[in-house]
Amino acid sequence: MIGTVSRAAQVLKEADHILILTHRRPDGDTTGSAGALCLALRRMGKQAYIAPNAQITRRYAHLIEPYAPENGFDPAFVISVDCADTGMIPPEMAAYAEHVDLVIDHHRSNTGFGRENLVMGERAACAEIICELTEELGIPLDREIAEGIYVGASTDTGCFKFSNTTSNTHRVAAKCLDAGVDGGEINRALFETKSRARYEIEGMLFSGMQFYHDGKIAVALITREAKRKTGADWDDLDAIAGIPRQIEGVEVGLTLTELEDGDTKVSVRTTKEVDASAICTLVGGGGHIRAAGATLHCPAQEAIVRMLEATERVYRGETA
Amino acid sequence: MIGTVSRAAQVLKEADHILILTHRRPDGDTTGSAGALCLALRRMGKQAYIAPNAQITRRYAHLIEPYAPENGFDPAFVISVDCADTGMIPPEMAAYAEHVDLVIDHHRSNTGFGRENLVMGERAACAEIICELTEELGIPLDREIAEGIYVGASTDTGCFKFSNTTSNTHRVAAKCLDAGVDGGEINRALFETKSRARYEIEGMLFSGMQFYHDGKIAVALITREAKRKTGADWDDLDAIAGIPRQIEGVEVGLTLTELEDGDTKVSVRTTKEVDASAICTLVGGGGHIRAAGATLHCPAQEAIVRMLEATERVYRGETA
Repeated sequence: MIGTVSRAAQVLKEADHILILTHRRPDGDTTGSAGALCLALRRMGKQAYIAPNAQITRRYAHLIEPYAPENGFDPAFVISVDCADTGMIPPEMAAYAEHVDLVIDHHRSNTGFGRENLVMGERAACAEIICELTEELGIPLDREIAEGIYVGASTDTGCFKFSNTTSNTHRVAAKCLDAGVDGGEINRALFETKSRARYEIEGMLFSGMQFYHDGKIAVALITREAKRKTGADWDDLDAIAGIPRQIEGVEVGLTLTELEDGDTKVSVRTTKEVDASAICTLVGGGGHIRAAGATLHCPAQEAIVRMLEATERVYRGETA
Repeated sequence: MIGTVSRAAQVLKEADHILILTHRRPDGDTTGSAGALCLALRRMGKQAYIAPNAQITRRYAHLIEPYAPENGFDPAFVISVDCADTGMIPPEMAAYAEHVDLVIDHHRSNTGFGRENLVMGERAACAEIICELTEELGIPLDREIAEGIYVGASTDTGCFKFSNTTSNTHRVAAKCLDAGVDGGEINRALFETKSRARYEIEGMLFSGMQFYHDGKIAVALITREAKRKTGADWDDLDAIAGIPRQIEGVEVGLTLTELEDGDTKVSVRTTKEVDASAICTLVGGGGHIRAAGATLHCPAQEAIVRMLEATERVYRGETA
């Protein structure tokens, strides 16, 4: 843990003209945390906005877009949420990346790149930290603030299913439901509704899946062509990385996605036998113990070889 | 609500030589509740067993099979858990169905068929009631008891995803994790691991799905032949009823399963626009507002017609 909730609350009480940054390929936790924090700061009478994120998808747009800065807004205080390092901050926010005033994050790999930092690696979602902050600040958890917190907690834990879920995650969710959040409808939209593109890409994923290490490692590849054919966007691909691990006997699921710039994004999901973060650290990435990722600056086939090597090294007990 | 937690606890304190009954086609809630309750009663120094359930599947067997009665056990006190009516009690337990001493259940349709009753319709899972009962009885929630409670709460709410999940469900889950339950591994086994038979039957389900009422009603049929071809058992079919509702625009998902005796089992899953329980009540079934079911004594094609009629009636605002 870096920093304390009370220190962060103190810093926020003194701040104003605030801009909140979310991370690249924004997910439910960065957008939910940003939305909830922005609302909480406004409830305190502060001017607070969320920087527009060029990669925002329709699934999470409603959480941040209403809080885009007005013309001519010049921030005096910058907060990043759910960003493990400056590299996770999108290029369009580069002007702020090197001088973040307050970093709020739950990635264990975060070394604290802000002037002030609140990093709680034991929290499953950054949104849980936002919940504690609002309590420390004495801001009542209304339905609107709670919705962002719930979305963050729910999406970062696979709807409370993954092993990163703690009793704190459940207690935060309980508070959100008590505040009037309609968890069932939110989860249906986030987890239960599948677009046709999603179904098609899942079909491709299964038919092309390859197995290694006595069936303990499953590798799935999402090509640029598959994305074009199905019309799948980042929304359609959300949480698809969890699929290879679903197959009986699989301990490490590697999902590789060809990016438009020629790089390959890798998402690693593991069972309790293997440390996903250790695998990704070996190739320059990072993350959590059961869910981690990296971006490899090479084509997919080369990335597969490098990821299999890294996975085998972790199986042998080697670390970075 | 029928009965009180304190009255049920009082009755249990005075009981001994106890037999616990689970319901037909046992799920995680009836088996988890039974297992947790049986352990709790044993912690109180009582003789307690769970009646063997002929339809138990490998997924839930470990929750009840260790507590099968010893030869010659003659119960003096019978408890049913998660059984809405005597019809839900399996035929092999028929000797006890008509004189249950204590009914513990969360189905709203339960009118209290026991000598004593604790029916809490506002609880998502019967296991939540077991958790309250153990607290009332002063039995510490250890990891073993908590595992049954967690499995019940998790399985009856689609892993805290469905709209029946309440803040109480989350608080119970938090207590279970604090007691040492490995939620991640339990959920992976229950929700994330798919057998090959399951994948195959999902594929059949999709290819044969039919839509009615402007795409708002989706009908899926699982034939006896499909079950035979894939070798799917009740485990493989668990929670499959949630699939038709996953498709964008669907408000009512009807999943029909041909039973071996020629009857047709129907599972209804709805979004917030439609009351699943109202639909099933019209055909002699029952259940919850978003998840309900019925067994129709007719072939599948006739059952489809009757279910579509019932659904259209509910859309028109008619009730039983």
